[in-house]
Amino acid sequence: MKIELRHGSGGEETGRLIHQLFEKYFTNPILDRMEDGAVLPVMKGHPVFTSDSFVVEPLFFPGGDIGKLSICGTVNDLASMGAKPLYLTASFILETGLETDTLEKVAASMAAAAREAGVSIVAGDTKVIEGRGGLYINTAGLGERAADCTISASAMEAGDAVILTGTMGDHHGTILTERLHMKSGLRSDCAPLWGLVESLLAEGLSIHTIRDITRGGLATVANELAEASGRAMELQEERIPLSESVRELAGILGLDPLTMGNEGKMMIVLPEKEADRALEVLHRHPYGREASLAGRIMEGKGVHLITAYGGKRKLLPLRGEGLPRIC
Amino acid sequence: MKIELRHGSGGEETGRLIHQLFEKYFTNPILDRMEDGAVLPVMKGHPVFTSDSFVVEPLFFPGGDIGKLSICGTVNDLASMGAKPLYLTASFILETGLETDTLEKVAASMAAAAREAGVSIVAGDTKVIEGRGGLYINTAGLGERAADCTISASAMEAGDAVILTGTMGDHHGTILTERLHMKSGLRSDCAPLWGLVESLLAEGLSIHTIRDITRGGLATVANELAEASGRAMELQEERIPLSESVRELAGILGLDPLTMGNEGKMMIVLPEKEADRALEVLHRHPYGREASLAGRIMEGKGVHLITAYGGKRKLLPLRGEGLPRIC
Repeated sequence: MKIELRHGSGGEETGRLIHQLFEKYFTNPILDRMEDGAVLPVMKGHPVFTSDSFVVEPLFFPGGDIGKLSICGTVNDLASMGAKPLYLTASFILETGLETDTLEKVAASMAAAAREAGVSIVAGDTKVIEGRGGLYINTAGLGERAADCTISASAMEAGDAVILTGTMGDHHGTILTERLHMKSGLRSDCAPLWGLVESLLAEGLSIHTIRDITRGGLATVANELAEASGRAMELQEERIPLSESVRELAGILGLDPLTMGNEGKMMIVLPEKEADRALEVLHRHPYGREASLAGRIMEGKGVHLITAYGGKRKLLPLRGEGLPRIC
Repeated sequence: MKIELRHGSGGEETGRLIHQLFEKYFTNPILDRMEDGAVLPVMKGHPVFTSDSFVVEPLFFPGGDIGKLSICGTVNDLASMGAKPLYLTASFILETGLETDTLEKVAASMAAAAREAGVSIVAGDTKVIEGRGGLYINTAGLGERAADCTISASAMEAGDAVILTGTMGDHHGTILTERLHMKSGLRSDCAPLWGLVESLLAEGLSIHTIRDITRGGLATVANELAEASGRAMELQEERIPLSESVRELAGILGLDPLTMGNEGKMMIVLPEKEADRALEVLHRHPYGREASLAGRIMEGKGVHLITAYGGKRKLLPLRGEGLPRIC
């Protein structure tokens, strides 16, 4: 069956779509009440609130799909604030012509990712627009963080170590090669990273800053953090983890892997003397096996890359188009 | 300037768009931190969480625009749960070709509506897709409700009174006549209704159920509530407020005003003996001047309409297309 405008009317057809598809996969006691808003248990810590829309094309790709991405993206934004992700809303904009089988696959994938991330989808919305079978998802996320947590983009200090939790550019490379119908062996790194952050916090490390490295890649994220904190960052080129496939792809197409986004990698900034302990924790976690101490924070401004040959160049944020609709 | 794909890359152009447009209008201490997620003050009551996407066409119409709608829709969902709306996220999907002037007007309108509703926009996201100048907005909302509040779709009791806070179908009629380029004098009723709900709660009324009457109109909402509560509802046709313009439009086009949606009207269900006090409170409020005691709850199932001539007919929810992209 294909989605038609009547599925977005708010009447019986919308109700049936919600019952037969979203409720089936997302079922939980809060959602199942089907109220105008989800009433949640009282929270002791600080609520952390975020939202992202997902417009990735193609909808399905090696390592994930728009559904998994829509859960991981928002969960990782909360985790980057040191907040335990608890609840998500899921709002769908469906284009006419979308196969309900496709939508069902996406819903099943969202449910699986939410299970892994330990979050419940507690509210949602469905709208239909004229189109050609496309699908856009917005997820908003609500997490809870401890009252004494001070993780922030502005908290980096001179003397801090910069850790990257894994290889750069995998998600970007995957979307690009899929769109070009290239065989590459690449898989998106799309993954929910709260577990990784939780193990670091459990170790009692005094983390200053966490940022998930998405659109714009490492170069953009590094510059945003340098600006927010009023500090300089220096990255060692040969310590930035890159898969062989991304290295080759970047070589062939003349891309800079440092502006290629991920969906399952983070930058972690903490005092240098805690870096080894952090790496030990990360290396034990399935999503942190290739974590690398890749740089440091200094007084000053901007981001510099120390090249393999000892040269030093300014690393600028992504400028121009990048790859459209990567997430 | 027109929106291009580069505005969605996550790089410098996205950053500039956010700084120059969204930050300018939405500025507040939490948003201005520009973190991955907004860290909010601890809440004593229950968090209430909701989300809606807005795809209305045309973007601007008498009485409102997609921006005002995106604030009011989510604020009203929270208010319908008896929750004070506090924080919103705002996520934009922009189509290429959209004029940034248009986007700026929408942002200004969102800021004004947020101010009236007493909410802060604390986080957001911007994506760009190929298209023809369209614009979609998702807002998620976070509110707080008192621990002893039990307002729920399932809480209607036999003997309750059903109050409608104003005229039905104004928003729907406005969108329809705009799309047909008809002169009608209609204005959307789009409005943030927390103030209305707050005055009822301040009066100490024991409200059982509130629902804002949006897509699908009164007929759909009444049936949803009857089903959720396992009760029957009886509505008096001549007590359902209708503006002369909507009555005429419905007559000319053969529409049923009871399936025409609003964006600033609610159904309020509470014990019959409290109905007069509720009406007094509502009539004093600018958004409740035409409030009317329009029906009652009984044991049984379904929704019935008592016609002006004393006949009785089953009132069914909207079936089929309704009006596409009304909100």
